[in-house]
Amino acid sequence: MTVNVSVVVGNPKPASRTLKVATALVEHLLDPGSFDLTLIDLADHEADIFAWPSEKMAALNASVAESDLAVFASPTYKATYTGLLKAFLDRYPANGLAGVVAIPLLTGADQTHSMGPTHSLAPLLAELGAIVPGRGLYFVASQMDRLDELVSAAAAEYRGNLSRLARVAAHAGTVEGVSR
Amino acid sequence: MTVNVSVVVGNPKPASRTLKVATALVEHLLDPGSFDLTLIDLADHEADIFAWPSEKMAALNASVAESDLAVFASPTYKATYTGLLKAFLDRYPANGLAGVVAIPLLTGADQTHSMGPTHSLAPLLAELGAIVPGRGLYFVASQMDRLDELVSAAAAEYRGNLSRLARVAAHAGTVEGVSR
Amino acid sequence: MTVNVSVVVGNPKPASRTLKVATALVEHLLDPGSFDLTLIDLADHEADIFAWPSEKMAALNASVAESDLAVFASPTYKATYTGLLKAFLDRYPANGLAGVVAIPLLTGADQTHSMGPTHSLAPLLAELGAIVPGRGLYFVASQMDRLDELVSAAAAEYRGNLSRLARVAAHAGTVEGVSR
Amino acid sequence: MTVNVSVVVGNPKPASRTLKVATALVEHLLDPGSFDLTLIDLADHEADIFAWPSEKMAALNASVAESDLAVFASPTYKATYTGLLKAFLDRYPANGLAGVVAIPLLTGADQTHSMGPTHSLAPLLAELGAIVPGRGLYFVASQMDRLDELVSAAAAEYRGNLSRLARVAAHAGTVEGVSR
Repeated sequence: MTVNVSVVVGNPKPASRTLKVATALVEHLLDPGSFDLTLIDLADHEADIFAWPSEKMAALNASVAESDLAVFASPTYKATYTGLLKAFLDRYPANGLAGVVAIPLLTGADQTHSMGPTHSLAPLLAELGAIVPGRGLYFVASQMDRLDELVSAAAAEYRGNLSRLARVAAHAGTVEGVSR
Repeated sequence: MTVNVSVVVGNPKPASRTLKVATALVEHLLDPGSFDLTLIDLADHEADIFAWPSEKMAALNASVAESDLAVFASPTYKATYTGLLKAFLDRYPANGLAGVVAIPLLTGADQTHSMGPTHSLAPLLAELGAIVPGRGLYFVASQMDRLDELVSAAAAEYRGNLSRLARVAAHAGTVEGVSR
Repeated sequence: MTVNVSVVVGNPKPASRTLKVATALVEHLLDPGSFDLTLIDLADHEADIFAWPSEKMAALNASVAESDLAVFASPTYKATYTGLLKAFLDRYPANGLAGVVAIPLLTGADQTHSMGPTHSLAPLLAELGAIVPGRGLYFVASQMDRLDELVSAAAAEYRGNLSRLARVAAHAGTVEGVSR
Repeated sequence: MTVNVSVVVGNPKPASRTLKVATALVEHLLDPGSFDLTLIDLADHEADIFAWPSEKMAALNASVAESDLAVFASPTYKATYTGLLKAFLDRYPANGLAGVVAIPLLTGADQTHSMGPTHSLAPLLAELGAIVPGRGLYFVASQMDRLDELVSAAAAEYRGNLSRLARVAAHAGTVEGVSR
């Protein structure tokens, strides 16, 4: 059995380094062959992002909401996520990402805004009901030559966190209807 | 096998309603008999909170850091956690709560500050390496007569989240040395 | 001599109540006849918000950056400003609102998100170099029948703040070249 | 006529570099001889910070609340202000710093937490009714040899901001009873 994974990239420019970091994180985090990956590069959907209603956007939103795991990635604009990523998330109703395990990821030019993922993007995802299993990931764009090393370390921290969470989960009372 | 649970209460007044809400949450979340509970009411330790070094405080800090699950609870002062709770957390070194599954809980007079647990206390705990498996819990103090109902609903949401996290954990690559 | 004032509204729907609250605030804050008002309803510019370059958008951005005072207003989406407003602000370079006195304003359904203007929109404007002379304003949309009363109270607080600021300004060392 | 200025330092260790940066900022910002400075080093008051009631603490709180300008300075602990500073601010009632022009200042080891003053300490002060006329100041402690240069630049930005604010103040409707 596999898990459904989404990567949502909020860079107004397509095929960005941010996208590359996000997909690398998924590959380092999950066992090969254990997941189906849906990649949503919002740069491809700028023309529809404010359209309402939009079957196309609704399908994208639903795809992410049905994921087991989703990485929400954006370059850092004005110390936080882009308006493009926020506009995509704005399309959800209250609690629209309930139950989705989510990893917030921001790329930036230097360490100045490294609080962004944990203090700004993570709370936004939690508002929507997503579950963020650890710190957000901040990646300094000039370190693309160390991509594997840095993403591997982040993935190891998330794996450790998931293992600790599973231990607590085993002692939490069973709830009817939450498994899928 | 049991899990170690801590409840840390940052109310300058002892035996507060905040303490009562926090312990009720643990009881609703975990199976009876499956956990050992350590309760730290910081009102009992105000005289030592800035002492450095302090064997007594170091023991309290270590006890929480070694927990599988910890609830960090505080009344809302100036829209966020109290200085007393922060002073306790300030005693940790960087990453001092690594691997602890943590639930942020604030009590308040009305809905005005209900963003506090998710937007302020949760990021603080994540900075220390704790893992926050969902939204923070905000409890309006005038609703003590509905304590069981409200805490039960919050516990059900956390249980659902933990179940979802365990599902992803099962597909994350194994890491040597993270289990305890 | 008059001051230049901008009102920027980030509601994806045009001519919103949010717009009405923002313009009412300006009218209560400044002396009649003492200001020139530019109103930018971003709902009218959705098709261009991600266009790059765009002479039209550049003119709008410049107009706000050259204002003495600007109100940035948005409905509350996911506990904070809309992606539409953020996308407009993302077009500025670093420090692009330097020296602009700015008032953050969010409208919302209830008090649940009342921390948004002060804790989320105000810091975003400060990142861009804008000067926020007080708390952000949160307006519960169901109180439109009390618009004048509530906005008048907010304007009085800002006027008091500006008076206090002017008093400190009189004792701050003179800087060459900052007056306009 | 002079203005009353307070410097409040939240470092648990007395006579810190943080204190030195804060007083240097006041000296660069205001004209010599134009202000009376009260310096509150909270390290000297740890034993009383949770005492309630306390005439001594009440006098300190009142002194700051009656200031025209106050600098609130703290080292960065866990990405934000210390528990000691928060505990001092917790002693105020709602709106307890109304009308005080306030500058948030954090010192830190590197740029990692540079969002703290603007995104965390400034909103806290605004919650209390203080008026923050610009970005918060973040000072990297290893740059003490450039203290005058860096603080001078920050002071120049605040002076420019105050000048812009005074310009808007001149067009804001007069309010009875706000001058002192």
